Amino acid sequence: MIKKVEEPKIQVATEFKNSHRVYVENKEQTVKVPMREITLSPTNKPDGKVEANEPVRVYDTSGPWGDQDFNGTYADGLPKIRTPWVLDRQDTEEIMGREVKPSDNGYLSDVHDRKISDQKNELPDFDRTNITTLRAKNGAVVTQLQYARQGVITPEMEYIAIRENMRLQDCKGKINSSSALERNTLEHQHVGESFGASIPEEITPEFVRSEVAMGRAIIPANINHPELEPMIIGRNFLVKINANIGNSAVASSIEEEVEKMRWATQWGADTLMDLSTGKNIHRTREWILRNCPVPVGTVPIYQALEKVNGKPEDLTWEIFRDTLVEQAEQGVDYFTIHAGVLLRYVPLTSKRMTGIVSRGGSIMAKWCLSHHRENFLYENWDEICKIMAAYDISFSIGDGLRPGSIADANDEAQFAELKTQGELTKRAWEFGVQVMNEGPGHVPMHMIKENMEKQIEWCSEAPFYTLGPLTTDIAPGYDHLTSGIGAAMIGWYGCAMLCYVTPKEHLGLPDRDDVREGVIAYKIAAHAADLAKGHPAAQFRDNALSKARFEFRWEDQFNLSLDPPKAREFHDQTLPNDNAKTAHFCSMCGPHFCSMKISDEVREFAKQKGLDSKEAIELGMQDKAKEFVEKGGEIYSS
Amino acid sequence: MIKKVEEPKIQVATEFKNSHRVYVENKEQTVKVPMREITLSPTNKPDGKVEANEPVRVYDTSGPWGDQDFNGTYADGLPKIRTPWVLDRQDTEEIMGREVKPSDNGYLSDVHDRKISDQKNELPDFDRTNITTLRAKNGAVVTQLQYARQGVITPEMEYIAIRENMRLQDCKGKINSSSALERNTLEHQHVGESFGASIPEEITPEFVRSEVAMGRAIIPANINHPELEPMIIGRNFLVKINANIGNSAVASSIEEEVEKMRWATQWGADTLMDLSTGKNIHRTREWILRNCPVPVGTVPIYQALEKVNGKPEDLTWEIFRDTLVEQAEQGVDYFTIHAGVLLRYVPLTSKRMTGIVSRGGSIMAKWCLSHHRENFLYENWDEICKIMAAYDISFSIGDGLRPGSIADANDEAQFAELKTQGELTKRAWEFGVQVMNEGPGHVPMHMIKENMEKQIEWCSEAPFYTLGPLTTDIAPGYDHLTSGIGAAMIGWYGCAMLCYVTPKEHLGLPDRDDVREGVIAYKIAAHAADLAKGHPAAQFRDNALSKARFEFRWEDQFNLSLDPPKAREFHDQTLPNDNAKTAHFCSMCGPHFCSMKISDEVREFAKQKGLDSKEAIELGMQDKAKEFVEKGGEIYSS
Repeated sequence: MIKKVEEPKIQVATEFKNSHRVYVENKEQTVKVPMREITLSPTNKPDGKVEANEPVRVYDTSGPWGDQDFNGTYADGLPKIRTPWVLDRQDTEEIMGREVKPSDNGYLSDVHDRKISDQKNELPDFDRTNITTLRAKNGAVVTQLQYARQGVITPEMEYIAIRENMRLQDCKGKINSSSALERNTLEHQHVGESFGASIPEEITPEFVRSEVAMGRAIIPANINHPELEPMIIGRNFLVKINANIGNSAVASSIEEEVEKMRWATQWGADTLMDLSTGKNIHRTREWILRNCPVPVGTVPIYQALEKVNGKPEDLTWEIFRDTLVEQAEQGVDYFTIHAGVLLRYVPLTSKRMTGIVSRGGSIMAKWCLSHHRENFLYENWDEICKIMAAYDISFSIGDGLRPGSIADANDEAQFAELKTQGELTKRAWEFGVQVMNEGPGHVPMHMIKENMEKQIEWCSEAPFYTLGPLTTDIAPGYDHLTSGIGAAMIGWYGCAMLCYVTPKEHLGLPDRDDVREGVIAYKIAAHAADLAKGHPAAQFRDNALSKARFEFRWEDQFNLSLDPPKAREFHDQTLPNDNAKTAHFCSMCGPHFCSMKISDEVREFAKQKGLDSKEAIELGMQDKAKEFVEKGGEIYSS
Repeated sequence: MIKKVEEPKIQVATEFKNSHRVYVENKEQTVKVPMREITLSPTNKPDGKVEANEPVRVYDTSGPWGDQDFNGTYADGLPKIRTPWVLDRQDTEEIMGREVKPSDNGYLSDVHDRKISDQKNELPDFDRTNITTLRAKNGAVVTQLQYARQGVITPEMEYIAIRENMRLQDCKGKINSSSALERNTLEHQHVGESFGASIPEEITPEFVRSEVAMGRAIIPANINHPELEPMIIGRNFLVKINANIGNSAVASSIEEEVEKMRWATQWGADTLMDLSTGKNIHRTREWILRNCPVPVGTVPIYQALEKVNGKPEDLTWEIFRDTLVEQAEQGVDYFTIHAGVLLRYVPLTSKRMTGIVSRGGSIMAKWCLSHHRENFLYENWDEICKIMAAYDISFSIGDGLRPGSIADANDEAQFAELKTQGELTKRAWEFGVQVMNEGPGHVPMHMIKENMEKQIEWCSEAPFYTLGPLTTDIAPGYDHLTSGIGAAMIGWYGCAMLCYVTPKEHLGLPDRDDVREGVIAYKIAAHAADLAKGHPAAQFRDNALSKARFEFRWEDQFNLSLDPPKAREFHDQTLPNDNAKTAHFCSMCGPHFCSMKISDEVREFAKQKGLDSKEAIELGMQDKAKEFVEKGGEIYSS
């Protein structure tokens, strides 16, 4: 069965024509940052001249799978680029690690289990012969936060500085002040509105360090996930997106999940959450982690619940703790932990339209009610922090009481938990652990900003990570869209990472197409937010694509888009001939008439009349303008 | 060929299960307003009781085609419900009307024409034997604006008052103040943020009249389009959406366009613009108008251009004027006229990234430059107004210089034209003509609000009607989404109508699926805006759907959604059995564990403990809370 996944199905060259992988290094050549470079065709000017167009580099989350020269297989796993960096710090030690138990894969938790031997035949374990398990030396805190506080710029931080700047690296060192540029230059960028964020003109390694030190950004990077290509989540950086994958009791298989991981990161997912339930959780996660170039998050309580046969009331701190260690050793980069669902908040949800819709939230609510005791995650927070610190796992503090409908948005239960998330954030910081906070959910547009403002205030500027929010409940089947609206807005207001929603949300499990739709919808939301915030690396791609569009460079327009095959396919549905891709018209108006063509003529006209600067335009129009003024300056001249 | 369109393909009963057409009348029974009523299944309470759920009525734009008892054909055309209303006013007279010329269908404008006889065999003219053409009696102004100013409440206004209130009609006269209600009641509504709009708790006929009188809303309703079911476009009403249809030189046929009209209004298009170019423009429009229950808009310069063989410089006022009369007599309800593209603004576009992207804008720009004369639409504005007033055609003053890329957003050319749109608005009002203004285009999120604010100020609160705006340029193939974000936002800020964008925008001509995707995306944007503005008829449907979702009434969830077949199809992909539609779990978590089920238990628990009011909850939690306070009130209790 594993053979099915050994041959990577994804062919970057096919999906992304005229693209190839390049690496940008720092001066010391200690880090090598991947980017996708898109080659463009030249511009044919109206005067017959040909003008070259510089290639465009874009942020690339596909990892080695997106490198045309990489020939690895799933069974090999990805190269471990971070291993030397981690070992150089000399604050970790190799450990034997916890022994994998059958219950980690759910085999002893269900009386209806088939024989273990049968199960094992289905899919082998990933071969860990050459894999070592690391942990902080006794008492050490091996987090990026800790290093940042000590003034250390890690290779991870250097890597991120190059990655976040994108094209700025290419401008021969020249970073332009945005607003002064003419609109038809590629470097033009509107002045953004960032609501008090502090986005610099250039991201330096020192800036990355200082943001991490302040807790305003996190670098999720477990020391046991050396395959990971470092990325940063914070309000002053590019907005990131997360894609959820994971099998469930109802559908899907391990192969599908590993393929989904590859697929999601090819389209641009910055992190992945493995939300698997049911069987083979441990094994699936191992295959994913060893092949995944982006941070992987989980909700450990899901697996813990499987170990107690799905009965929340049977959960114990010991089982949960053991699960944390299990996943920490595998290399999970961030944990969603619903420690803010306090016993006294649970009854606040009883008057809601849709109660508790978070899986983790409802597990903890049930536990609290059954035992009439405080949430054991909350009560063992210090202990959890110590584990996180020993592997550099970041917190994604869960929002178990997020609203599940427009009616329940911004209610008492939700905000009570958010305040507790703030308390937990500060406590984690005391242990040197990196933290982000999860947020809603379903929120009408006019109530979104309040979420961001309260989170910034109560959680002391720790990064916010929201699911959507969905701005209406009435469009199941289109919730990538209802939530894309809210996601773009909260990203603009300061949200650092957006958890995608697929068209299948509320209805079923996403398939390949749904994952692609969801990722692209969220890439759009994140990019729209970057533009609005005024991130200096944002508008370049819009400019390059619009220039290509205006110049009828169809192939460039496709290739610069977020989803080139889709753009090409849509174009071909109306004009399938290859000729149409070099035609100086489009299917909207046809060859007879074309507004873009007329615009070209306007430009030519202005040029011929010497009207190629604003002053000249004003001069040139003076006579006509004078005439108008004489007639009264208004329209009533007939 | 016409036989293909005689049998309506759309079956409301199939697309919208458990829905049927109802009519709500006014007291005097002079107007009969169609709504779609969705029947719901009962709620099975945890205690075994069964509780009925009232049916939900939704705004219905499908016209008689959505009435299960209507058996008309395209050849018959729709019933002329407005004829008695128009004739009662006794200010119009029957005229012979302009004779249809071959050039109206483009037959003499192209040397490559096939024989006229051949063309005629393809599709017959609509049979106008029983159709009369009306015009205002000499000098009369027969517009809804004129009547409103005179204090007259027309049947159109009464109709609209009922239509806009929606469910409020059903609440046995009880209109609840929103914020006081508990969140789990269907009537709960969040207090909106309307940025200075004046949305009342209930829409009365008098309110409709006063809004129209002030020019803050329009009722596009040509006296020669009696098939039309009146609707209103204004900031204090439900946000409306427009769908564009129309053949072009490259693709599509008349049948397709008529079918697209039906299809678009079935999914919820509030108006249609027929943007046909090429051959058969007149004939296509006639078929559409006679069968269309919603207002139809056009851009008359498109047809005028066909009459001069596609050469903008050959356009004349006389040809344009003749085209206006031609379309006015057919019954077009609103005209997009690009009179704000002034000669002196054209060179301002030469420094743009994407020049002039509006078709109408570039036609007029070319005309102005070729003749070095002022825009003839601007110079003949008074004359145009008089024609509009004689048929009650509304202006949709075009934005010919709208930005075609993020780079060009909110530039000098765009805002110069917007100011002129404001001048033209006031002048049209002097002639008693109804006006809305068109807006952009491509605008990053943080620059959208400025568009709305300037339009309100410069155009004296005339309704705004925007295309998107698209919030990024980098996602061709997904521009229903890049623009849906901008559309929702500008709708919230006060935009009255949103022109849809389909996934094919920039790439090709929309097919059936694209029209559906585009309409649903824009229904989402408009509804999200209504929720955010706090329109009193908005949240009810979200509440009803969320209640159904929480209670696992799957069929009701599908049927209450904007696109029931899609929701059902997505659900069935994961859980195809009919059992799954009555199951008390969903495909996300499976039968073993379900957060919604746990929420139910929380509710039950709270109820058993008598914690069903906030006070009781606080009481019940007091002991636990006390314990916390004693331990320090914080989390450090371990």
